[in-house]
Amino acid sequence: MALRLYDLAGADPNLRFSPYCWRTRMALAHKGLGVETIAWRFTEKAEIAFSGQGRVPVLIDGDTTVADSWAIAEYLERTYPDRPSLFGGAAGLAAARFINAWADTIQVPGLARLIVIDVLACIDAKDRDYFRTSREQRFGMSLEALCADRDRQVTAFRQSLQPLRTMLAAQPYVGGRAANYADYIVFGGFQWARCVSAFRLIEPDDPIHAWRDRLLNAFDGLAGKTPRAAPAG
Amino acid sequence: MALRLYDLAGADPNLRFSPYCWRTRMALAHKGLGVETIAWRFTEKAEIAFSGQGRVPVLIDGDTTVADSWAIAEYLERTYPDRPSLFGGAAGLAAARFINAWADTIQVPGLARLIVIDVLACIDAKDRDYFRTSREQRFGMSLEALCADRDRQVTAFRQSLQPLRTMLAAQPYVGGRAANYADYIVFGGFQWARCVSAFRLIEPDDPIHAWRDRLLNAFDGLAGKTPRAAPAG
Repeated sequence: MALRLYDLAGADPNLRFSPYCWRTRMALAHKGLGVETIAWRFTEKAEIAFSGQGRVPVLIDGDTTVADSWAIAEYLERTYPDRPSLFGGAAGLAAARFINAWADTIQVPGLARLIVIDVLACIDAKDRDYFRTSREQRFGMSLEALCADRDRQVTAFRQSLQPLRTMLAAQPYVGGRAANYADYIVFGGFQWARCVSAFRLIEPDDPIHAWRDRLLNAFDGLAGKTPRAAPAG
Repeated sequence: MALRLYDLAGADPNLRFSPYCWRTRMALAHKGLGVETIAWRFTEKAEIAFSGQGRVPVLIDGDTTVADSWAIAEYLERTYPDRPSLFGGAAGLAAARFINAWADTIQVPGLARLIVIDVLACIDAKDRDYFRTSREQRFGMSLEALCADRDRQVTAFRQSLQPLRTMLAAQPYVGGRAANYADYIVFGGFQWARCVSAFRLIEPDDPIHAWRDRLLNAFDGLAGKTPRAAPAG
């Protein structure tokens, strides 16, 4: 039986934009594992209550349920050791935890300040109150206020990416010569933004732009071909 | 013949404080390699001209000279493969490059804003003009102005360490269960500060504090026992 993945969706059920779900989808593709994705909305907590928590990604593999993108990556590496490695060994996994923490605490919050208003515009109507209330509580201000200054804030965001940019001068992927899970961690954030927003995050001549393009093209364009929200009229 | 390392020193030749030299000294200890360190001052460019550049660390191993802390780590891993691994394989090395870039572009500049004035106070008299001029050019302001606001700036610095703090909730070292070169990269910055400054960077209840203590105690207290500048006044 194919694996199944609860995957965050927008008003358009084909719009799949969660940065954490994208980490998992790229990891599954890296392992060469097919997956049936199930569109899930923020407020459908009952649908995934069986997983013991209320957020996606949730992966079902036979009798096993795994929630949380990092736990899923470790599960896949452990369960499918003969397929291409996500981490390249224990030290690669340990260092990827630092990169996961960087993405969760620096990159994703930095992106949120730039694009969360665009997320609001493309999610299902039934999710909007939940999304606005939970995010405004998290950020301590309205989503409009958070993103109002984004043309200026993008400069600080680009500066915060300097570790990735500096690294790319020495090697084409966080994984080295080829991409691995450390790349998918960071890529997930950019893919989130790309799916919901037309806001320019990265200048075309930034090496990060070319790295992102390589990942958009990976796995026969899995990420590059996914639907994006229609730009606001 | 023992390895030799040109190591940045202060007015007191036993005060060794370069963040990059500490990366190398911890790497040498990790490999179990003895080293003779040679006190070197910023303006002694002629002393290391044989290395083809003007900064330390510079390692001499028999007929081989290697400059730059990252290049030295790669050299040691390649040349002494039967000793404890610094990177734990190709993926560990690749991910460590990201962490090296994070330390060089986020952590060390963040530390400089807090402690560079204390560096000035403990370097050799002949280095002071060079140090002040080169650093004031880099930061675009006087060293006094750079550090004047440090009691307030330390909050942003601590926030910038969130990736390390979050990671430490899951594992005791960047290397996983044991320290490796990724830890020494980040530790080098803290050791730089500790050697020259009494300014409190990290609160005692921060998990980063305990992690740093573990590294200060590593290798029979190599880093913990090194001389520190006498506190001013």
